[in-house]
Amino acid sequence: MTEVIIAGIGQTEVGEHWGIALRDLAYAAIKEAVTDSGGLKPQALFVGNMLAPNLSNQAHLGVLLADHCGMRGIEAVTVEAAGASGGAALRQGYMAVKSGLVDVALVVGVEKFTDQVGAGVDSAVATTSDSDFEAVQGLTATGQAALLMRRYMHEYNVPTDGFAGFPLIAHANGAGNPNAMFRKAIKREAYLKAEMVSDPINMFDAAPNADGAAAVILTRNGLLPKEFSHPLVKIAASAVSTDTLALHDRHAPLGFWAARESVEAACHKAGIGLEKIDFFEYHDSYSIYAALSLEAAGFAKPGQGWLYADSGSISLKSSLPCATMGGLKARGFPGGATGVYQAVEAAMQLRGVAGLCQVAGARFGLIQALGGPASTAVVHILEKMDA
Amino acid sequence: MTEVIIAGIGQTEVGEHWGIALRDLAYAAIKEAVTDSGGLKPQALFVGNMLAPNLSNQAHLGVLLADHCGMRGIEAVTVEAAGASGGAALRQGYMAVKSGLVDVALVVGVEKFTDQVGAGVDSAVATTSDSDFEAVQGLTATGQAALLMRRYMHEYNVPTDGFAGFPLIAHANGAGNPNAMFRKAIKREAYLKAEMVSDPINMFDAAPNADGAAAVILTRNGLLPKEFSHPLVKIAASAVSTDTLALHDRHAPLGFWAARESVEAACHKAGIGLEKIDFFEYHDSYSIYAALSLEAAGFAKPGQGWLYADSGSISLKSSLPCATMGGLKARGFPGGATGVYQAVEAAMQLRGVAGLCQVAGARFGLIQALGGPASTAVVHILEKMDA
Repeated sequence: MTEVIIAGIGQTEVGEHWGIALRDLAYAAIKEAVTDSGGLKPQALFVGNMLAPNLSNQAHLGVLLADHCGMRGIEAVTVEAAGASGGAALRQGYMAVKSGLVDVALVVGVEKFTDQVGAGVDSAVATTSDSDFEAVQGLTATGQAALLMRRYMHEYNVPTDGFAGFPLIAHANGAGNPNAMFRKAIKREAYLKAEMVSDPINMFDAAPNADGAAAVILTRNGLLPKEFSHPLVKIAASAVSTDTLALHDRHAPLGFWAARESVEAACHKAGIGLEKIDFFEYHDSYSIYAALSLEAAGFAKPGQGWLYADSGSISLKSSLPCATMGGLKARGFPGGATGVYQAVEAAMQLRGVAGLCQVAGARFGLIQALGGPASTAVVHILEKMDA
Repeated sequence: MTEVIIAGIGQTEVGEHWGIALRDLAYAAIKEAVTDSGGLKPQALFVGNMLAPNLSNQAHLGVLLADHCGMRGIEAVTVEAAGASGGAALRQGYMAVKSGLVDVALVVGVEKFTDQVGAGVDSAVATTSDSDFEAVQGLTATGQAALLMRRYMHEYNVPTDGFAGFPLIAHANGAGNPNAMFRKAIKREAYLKAEMVSDPINMFDAAPNADGAAAVILTRNGLLPKEFSHPLVKIAASAVSTDTLALHDRHAPLGFWAARESVEAACHKAGIGLEKIDFFEYHDSYSIYAALSLEAAGFAKPGQGWLYADSGSISLKSSLPCATMGGLKARGFPGGATGVYQAVEAAMQLRGVAGLCQVAGARFGLIQALGGPASTAVVHILEKMDA
């Protein structure tokens, strides 16, 4: 059986990197991943990026990064699926290696929000929703999330502080991650006093846009260099589902259909049930998305995702740790790099090198990257292989 | 042996579609391709697009088009490599089907230049070159081509009308293609009198930006529907190479290294030599690129590509017909759709349904999509299978 191994991982600190160019951010993560792999030489580069054509006036990132990172000549391409771009790039790399057409693939996610400020960021982000029917009406990504959160609170009679569990856990975990944007635990009082961003979403219900780059090297198990000494982590399954792009087209907007389908498909491919999952890196760009993702995946019943978090069932010591290294909320949301950060973090967990964030004895990690309100959902299941 | 078959093809007329939205252009091509395939149901959609985030304020095209075209739920993603985006999307679809991870893949290329006018187009196109080191200096895509053409004329002592062969053939062929933007043959006198765009590039040396969409359906040979009655066309090889993004970084700028490497790799994979190639769809966004592509591929010696064209060696009745349905110059340059148009046109040639543009008895077609000055080069070899 051909297994696709995560042979190298690298990442930059997530934050505001005003003084570092996009290409240099990517280089830092790539260099770390190549070194980590024992010096594997990538034949193909898959770049996960969401907004560089608008934020950084730069498309054609594949060749730009291959060249800039000392890999001139290799196959290179950009993969885009809004906030799920990193996950989508990981899937393209997985397919390339799994198929045997490529022996060693490099997947890098990179985003540079600080190349724009203010309205420049807003109009860039607006391109990821339905421009002709939603963005043009002024509906922002945060506005979409606010509509969903209000609807959820109404349907399920959720109190004002019902979502506090998500950012509380995220920040508690982020405190232990040296690459997280926010490394401070917060208290429930802080959540209660937080300023509104888009009612009912307060400052702690929305993940911060951030700069960052993360990279993984993929190869097949027979191709690892002799000096490779990390515990083996493979991609046990990969799946993508889509929903409507426009939120107004959904019959059941709280259903997060694509989030559900992608998890089901991935579990089926990996041949495991949900009970085998040891931790879940969900896409908590908004607290409401974390709640809906828990429900869509099947970890919580509809309307109970917030209770699941509020009762502590997602903490590092629980049966289903989530956002183990801070998630989007505390590690930060580096756009199209996010899905690759999830993969790097999950690989760290499975290798047992997650430090203060370590989930004890983890074997299966579920990671899910979302584009828009689960318009695109990309899922991978990572598995620690037997020694 | 698993063969990846081009089971369905579709395209829209190339031109200025002021009144048709990007999603509707894509729909027209997709509908035609699905019908042509005998009703195959795609499981995955790969969108080749170059500039929609800037031209059309629309990213996240995968889910947008999957939803809009009646395929809600399927895997969907955008693939970008500047002008080579369509070729790059075709390669992702090929890998997905070849690997067995996807049974039926839909590849659509789409671009809508008329969503912007004037400077909006220029600044969008500028994102495909090195923003920090070339675009910021005012070097446009046409400026890059002009530098290369002037250098070529200097090195090889080429007369002012030396490149006329390329647009003359392109327009002669375009006259027979009902989907071409320009369907009129031109005379040498017209070339000689043409206005300068960026000296020495005149109006006929530069392909027109245009709107358009083209689609192909890929599957494996065992999965074709019973009612499928077209001659079988397979993808015999797929290869990608890259060079520097910035032209100023090249030691030998007339070498088009990636264009050469990608053709060599593809021929090697297909197990054939150049002499087997029956026609060549090169990326003639500029006449000089056509000349350099002929030389890089090995059909002409360095400095003789223009003579090759000028002597009529690329006409429909020659041994190496090029731009058989008009190429970028006469069919038009619909950005990220271009590489998929090439695939559709090559499939038509190999099926024997290219009408007035038909190349007699063609078995192997070489198609090459370029991003920038061969910064990215994506090559596919299509082969007509034995009945």
